[in-house]
Amino acid sequence: MSSEFLSIGEVLSHIKDVNNLEERAKTVQKFVDKDNEYGRYLESGSATLMNVVSEDSGENRECILWNVNHYLSLNRNIDVIEKACQALRQFGTGCGTSASSCGMTSLHKQIEHKISEMVGKEDAVLFPTGYTTNLGAISYLVGNKDLIIFDRESHSSIINGIKLSNAKRWMSFKHNDLSDLSRKLQKFENTFENIFVIVESAYSMSGDLAPLKELTKLKDSHNFYLYVDEAHTFGIYGEKGQGYCYEEGVTDNVDFIMSTLSKATASVGGFLAANKEYCSLIRYSDPYLFQACLTPADAAVVLASLEEIEKDPSLITKLHANNYYMRHLLTAKGFNLGNSASPIIPIFIEDHQKLRMVVKDLYLQGIYSTPIVFPAVKMNQGRIRLIVNYAHTKEQIEYTVNTLEDICQKHQVIDNEFSVPI
Amino acid sequence: MSSEFLSIGEVLSHIKDVNNLEERAKTVQKFVDKDNEYGRYLESGSATLMNVVSEDSGENRECILWNVNHYLSLNRNIDVIEKACQALRQFGTGCGTSASSCGMTSLHKQIEHKISEMVGKEDAVLFPTGYTTNLGAISYLVGNKDLIIFDRESHSSIINGIKLSNAKRWMSFKHNDLSDLSRKLQKFENTFENIFVIVESAYSMSGDLAPLKELTKLKDSHNFYLYVDEAHTFGIYGEKGQGYCYEEGVTDNVDFIMSTLSKATASVGGFLAANKEYCSLIRYSDPYLFQACLTPADAAVVLASLEEIEKDPSLITKLHANNYYMRHLLTAKGFNLGNSASPIIPIFIEDHQKLRMVVKDLYLQGIYSTPIVFPAVKMNQGRIRLIVNYAHTKEQIEYTVNTLEDICQKHQVIDNEFSVPI
Repeated sequence: MSSEFLSIGEVLSHIKDVNNLEERAKTVQKFVDKDNEYGRYLESGSATLMNVVSEDSGENRECILWNVNHYLSLNRNIDVIEKACQALRQFGTGCGTSASSCGMTSLHKQIEHKISEMVGKEDAVLFPTGYTTNLGAISYLVGNKDLIIFDRESHSSIINGIKLSNAKRWMSFKHNDLSDLSRKLQKFENTFENIFVIVESAYSMSGDLAPLKELTKLKDSHNFYLYVDEAHTFGIYGEKGQGYCYEEGVTDNVDFIMSTLSKATASVGGFLAANKEYCSLIRYSDPYLFQACLTPADAAVVLASLEEIEKDPSLITKLHANNYYMRHLLTAKGFNLGNSASPIIPIFIEDHQKLRMVVKDLYLQGIYSTPIVFPAVKMNQGRIRLIVNYAHTKEQIEYTVNTLEDICQKHQVIDNEFSVPI
Repeated sequence: MSSEFLSIGEVLSHIKDVNNLEERAKTVQKFVDKDNEYGRYLESGSATLMNVVSEDSGENRECILWNVNHYLSLNRNIDVIEKACQALRQFGTGCGTSASSCGMTSLHKQIEHKISEMVGKEDAVLFPTGYTTNLGAISYLVGNKDLIIFDRESHSSIINGIKLSNAKRWMSFKHNDLSDLSRKLQKFENTFENIFVIVESAYSMSGDLAPLKELTKLKDSHNFYLYVDEAHTFGIYGEKGQGYCYEEGVTDNVDFIMSTLSKATASVGGFLAANKEYCSLIRYSDPYLFQACLTPADAAVVLASLEEIEKDPSLITKLHANNYYMRHLLTAKGFNLGNSASPIIPIFIEDHQKLRMVVKDLYLQGIYSTPIVFPAVKMNQGRIRLIVNYAHTKEQIEYTVNTLEDICQKHQVIDNEFSVPI
């Protein structure tokens, strides 16, 4: 039975209705055994060019990587690396306890100060991961008489933060559809104590930017708190990386700004920036109280990356130039890039078999990205993501676009004659 | 109103019934403003002796630290630090994507192999934090016809993993009380598809060890999966740090072993070790799919720490010798240490005012630990924890015990004449 599944998405969807744990586990194992797409790792860490190793076969192939969210390649910046080494020697390797149990160091405090200044909020709370930032902040801000309305493409961490909250009710609105949102705001504004609207500034699986200006204008006629997840814009929008709320000039109308620190700033961690009182409240959320702090090395990487972004504006401008160039080439070849605009470029391939074959052929040509399938996206919305980086060269971009075109034509993902996506 | 609260626990309990977000936030802020116990950080990272800085007053005092869970002080081991620096130079600072999107490196793979060998399971899954290991594993293992029975003192990450699961029902059993557990197993064993029992090998707030031998014997007469959180025993029990399941000889009867990597191994991260199929299943849980991997430096710290533990058995023996010595001194002075046995020593001080005064006076004498109050423990079960470390000296232990006795007598926490806790 399980051998007929075409994608892990189908497997995961199937096992939802299987009561027996052994059977669920064996069904997944059976698929994983035949599909070693999922057993790959990087020989020596993330970079625009790196050897990808297959765990099962031992195959080791140098590839241009398109699935890394570092955006600015600061993970390979020598000054950033050396500051992390200094921090290791001065502060040790770990913190060994939570922030509330005095696990923070002067480095952690500097990050909170620096980020609150950058994004333009009174204070910022530093969490060990972006995921647990959303878990902690959302679950702890929302009360038991409140409603949450969130964009339908919201990240898993937002959804699970909502599930862990005491919200009286929650519902999604159609992706980036403000008329759907305002209908819902209107309908429910007198029914709940507070309404929280949660969106992402850029969506991780589509590359779509949120219409933040229009969204904040809804506050003129409706009463709600606005929570914006800047995971894919903090550090790369705004002339000094202040983020997309800043770039759109809407910061004062956004109540809560969060981001991970694992993308542009090349580390791990996350923050929630807001007024001082909200931050004080969030410091008593479970994942803040009961998780060990960011390690000093990771904290030093965040600080050093923010310094690099501040002092070298070309990091951001070259990233966006690369993004525009690649989009230009892909569009000219007839690829449908949806509504995407951020440095995440989706190549939609609905047919699971073809998606897997395209990914495989790209790998054989030294181009690496992972297939995006359910549960990351809806079942019939499979895609490849090309995540553009400051350090991708013109040649790497051109080679990737040309090879992608050839492979997509071979598998009839785009039409041979007109190069229009089928 | 809020100025009357004696502890943050009372504040947090009070605001649960407040609907208005502003009021909740302001109530917390008002307490935090007058109580700078909660604005402290470490000048240069965790160590047995370190300067503790008060954010508000700028006070900077050298203290013996008793609130750090590193146990073996490997965060200050020179070889561990140098291996982290090497990893930074070879692998870069971050991974920039999740494990399933090829964010893992050869270092991460080595950790999974090493840990599965150590704890005696077929495979291990590496998560970015211990907290999200429990979230991911528990929420994804348990099906919608299943029952979860967990120890009442379970960590926040277990509780939230349970809340995020689809379990049909969950309930706690009395702390370490196997007769209560077996009554519940008996009562419900034919009502649910599967029963999951979740315990910790050592409890973080009490230092109690779980009766694992007796617990696994219950499997002779009852049908259930057993999940053991080894956060406070992995790396420090078993002659090479294999953990408490290993030390008690019950590994084969435990289905799932998890631990954080932020304590004995001086880094961050977490793992779930189990048979291969279960691990394959858990690799599709949300926090695994949608969180960035551990950074290469943090991964290198885990590997290097495990090497140190393996090659130097005196790390573990000296830790336990310190633990026994401190317990001996405290008990001789009449302190009630409850049922604790692990290197977490609780000093119970029910009265909030007295607890705060004792913590403050200890700090003035250069001894630092944080007060443990609700929600970490029940409202009337406040305490100080003394977390013993391999690197604590005999003199530090003696000075701390003697000073603690003086301060506790001064505040009438223990009886002057008989030194018996009141």
